[in-house]
Amino acid sequence: MPFPYIISTSYRLALRLAPRHSPLISRSFIHTMVVSKKQPDENSKVLIFGAGNFGSCLASHLGDIQHEVFMWAREEPIIKHFNMHHRNPVYLKDHHFPQNITAVGPEMPSKEFINKMDVLLFAIPTQFLRDNLRTLRPQLDTNHLPLLIFVNKGIEIGTHALTLEIIADTCGAEIAKAATFISGPSFAKEIVERQPTSVSVASLTESEADKAAALFHQPHFRCYTGSDPIGIELSGALKNVYAIASGMSDGLGFENNTRAMIITRGLAEMTCIGAAYGASPLTFLGLAGVGDLFLTCSSSNSRNYTVGYRLGKGESLDVIMKTLGSVAEGVSTSKGVKNMIDELGVNAPIASAVYDVLYSGKDTQAAVRELMQLPPSRELELPPTAGGPARQLLRKLGLETQAEDLSVQASL
Amino acid sequence: MPFPYIISTSYRLALRLAPRHSPLISRSFIHTMVVSKKQPDENSKVLIFGAGNFGSCLASHLGDIQHEVFMWAREEPIIKHFNMHHRNPVYLKDHHFPQNITAVGPEMPSKEFINKMDVLLFAIPTQFLRDNLRTLRPQLDTNHLPLLIFVNKGIEIGTHALTLEIIADTCGAEIAKAATFISGPSFAKEIVERQPTSVSVASLTESEADKAAALFHQPHFRCYTGSDPIGIELSGALKNVYAIASGMSDGLGFENNTRAMIITRGLAEMTCIGAAYGASPLTFLGLAGVGDLFLTCSSSNSRNYTVGYRLGKGESLDVIMKTLGSVAEGVSTSKGVKNMIDELGVNAPIASAVYDVLYSGKDTQAAVRELMQLPPSRELELPPTAGGPARQLLRKLGLETQAEDLSVQASL
Repeated sequence: MPFPYIISTSYRLALRLAPRHSPLISRSFIHTMVVSKKQPDENSKVLIFGAGNFGSCLASHLGDIQHEVFMWAREEPIIKHFNMHHRNPVYLKDHHFPQNITAVGPEMPSKEFINKMDVLLFAIPTQFLRDNLRTLRPQLDTNHLPLLIFVNKGIEIGTHALTLEIIADTCGAEIAKAATFISGPSFAKEIVERQPTSVSVASLTESEADKAAALFHQPHFRCYTGSDPIGIELSGALKNVYAIASGMSDGLGFENNTRAMIITRGLAEMTCIGAAYGASPLTFLGLAGVGDLFLTCSSSNSRNYTVGYRLGKGESLDVIMKTLGSVAEGVSTSKGVKNMIDELGVNAPIASAVYDVLYSGKDTQAAVRELMQLPPSRELELPPTAGGPARQLLRKLGLETQAEDLSVQASL
Repeated sequence: MPFPYIISTSYRLALRLAPRHSPLISRSFIHTMVVSKKQPDENSKVLIFGAGNFGSCLASHLGDIQHEVFMWAREEPIIKHFNMHHRNPVYLKDHHFPQNITAVGPEMPSKEFINKMDVLLFAIPTQFLRDNLRTLRPQLDTNHLPLLIFVNKGIEIGTHALTLEIIADTCGAEIAKAATFISGPSFAKEIVERQPTSVSVASLTESEADKAAALFHQPHFRCYTGSDPIGIELSGALKNVYAIASGMSDGLGFENNTRAMIITRGLAEMTCIGAAYGASPLTFLGLAGVGDLFLTCSSSNSRNYTVGYRLGKGESLDVIMKTLGSVAEGVSTSKGVKNMIDELGVNAPIASAVYDVLYSGKDTQAAVRELMQLPPSRELELPPTAGGPARQLLRKLGLETQAEDLSVQASL
């Protein structure tokens, strides 16, 4: 959906902020860009990398709407079990999957197979993405590229890279620019039950986001498109840190006012960090921002919330991690975020407090007391410097115009 | 807290949007403006109009921190009971109030009494405010003005006026400009238990907001100041309509994904309506915006949520209103909002659906089905025209410069 060309409002300013990479700009470089080979039609071939909770539910959603779905798993027994019973033995165990989903693997599919695909969907943890993309790259034909969709969240440990950068590093800038990201408040269990769900779909190449939205959109699964994948990715990573804070508050026995405060002040912090990084502050108002933050912070189904809750109840992180039975991404993301806010010089007291509780042995009660004793302030203090990391990333992608645009705006 | 003067970021644009009436502008007219007589010190005299749920809890909070508090009630028996037992017989019944609160009324306090006050706090329903202010106006000495704080929410039935306009109509523009508004996620019961709570405090005269924040701020009650009272007021009114929608969804049996979607898309609608009205879109990211929206939409303690929940379960509005035992503001606000979105030409499908269910007998299931079947769209579409009502209101307040500023921005 293009923006109206004549915008006779003060919100022209907001619009300049909102779509950092506006369709007008995108169009100017679209002919020199790699785009996927076709608009996925009703019978597209989709290969999903990953048979975890979210990969499985998206396989089910796409299978439901008559696409031919292949789901790549790394474990032979899961593949065999799935193809025999149409059930995933590990995730969404109660769910019977559509017949048109075939599990494949554990080897990486062949170049010939990949070339037949209309869509590649990556639902593997961020920490494994670099290796997988490196293996996959030689199989990809950029003249005949499938639509590339990423649903993993989090920051890469060690490099603190976003997925967009991991893609650029392993597959080149052209492919990164064509990549599309889906994120939003979407528990897998509720998606397979077809409960009304909405998500954000964003790409630097707006036409690719439109294709992905068309592939997924259903009355029970609404897709809203945007053009700020950096903001979408940061939201997805940062929210888990605030989910730990929210769980901690509930574990300490606080109720609604406190939780609403943590979510709102957490959102203000996320927006500041995002703005300092170079994302659009308005992206954090969306489904991938406040929507997913709200979901993750207010449900005991969320692993990150649970880690916080148990910390608030007085358990040690060691014991919690040993007994949790699955990964809580916020625990490792918290380290990357601490690094990011220190480098960017952003004031993010809640994220810092979570880091201190997780890694410096700070008592949860003391952390809350210190947070509440901070001096009063204005509600929204956007950071004094902004856009450095995003500018660097855009240059890496060869998007000099957009990077320049950020520079010009930064010097205003 | 002043803004930094040198803002070397692209977010200068955001800042231009965020504090519509920036401290720089405020300062330029501050010498010609009415301001309250002094910074409330530790032993201020505070008169609270209204002994309802929220008025009582704020009386308790201010009494706790050693102010001399007077609470005006309209019913003689409540006044007597309160002064005898230090309990409110109707609201927060389990709470024992501090000894330094005296109930007064039912007549309007005398001019002499009002003149002794450092702070007047209005916690009476919006629908009664105009009459009360009209009665009060002759008692107010603008050369010796108490700090004026308003905590009521909602739009006046019939006129669709915000409180800022009601104040201007009854007390004149000068007093309206000095008025301060407090709003945010704050259940009364949790405030009197001293659970960590945060609120937004906003005024067109920033120094007045600072005074109000200083009066209320405590480690367990944090105040964040801002300068967009129009946005704060709109948030407070609009959120109740989305609380009805959220309750409806839960009543129909939908779960977390759907509720997160309603809150997020509701926030997008609120932001659009606010922007079209002339508020800053970024105000809706704050405690009075998303914070209070989140609280009201996710708690069965909220009357508006309950109305929606029971509608979702199939009860009729008539039966619900007869048995609810108290007013659900969202039901009347929904009418005013419908009028507002029609006049402003804003697309707000959730608010329209709530109106249709409440007033056109639309079935809740059908309303949800229709909402989910809307065509896909971009995530954030700010309205094509903006600022008319706020411009009109600012002119009414004699703030020609700010109104002009909105006009200039509108023509960009």
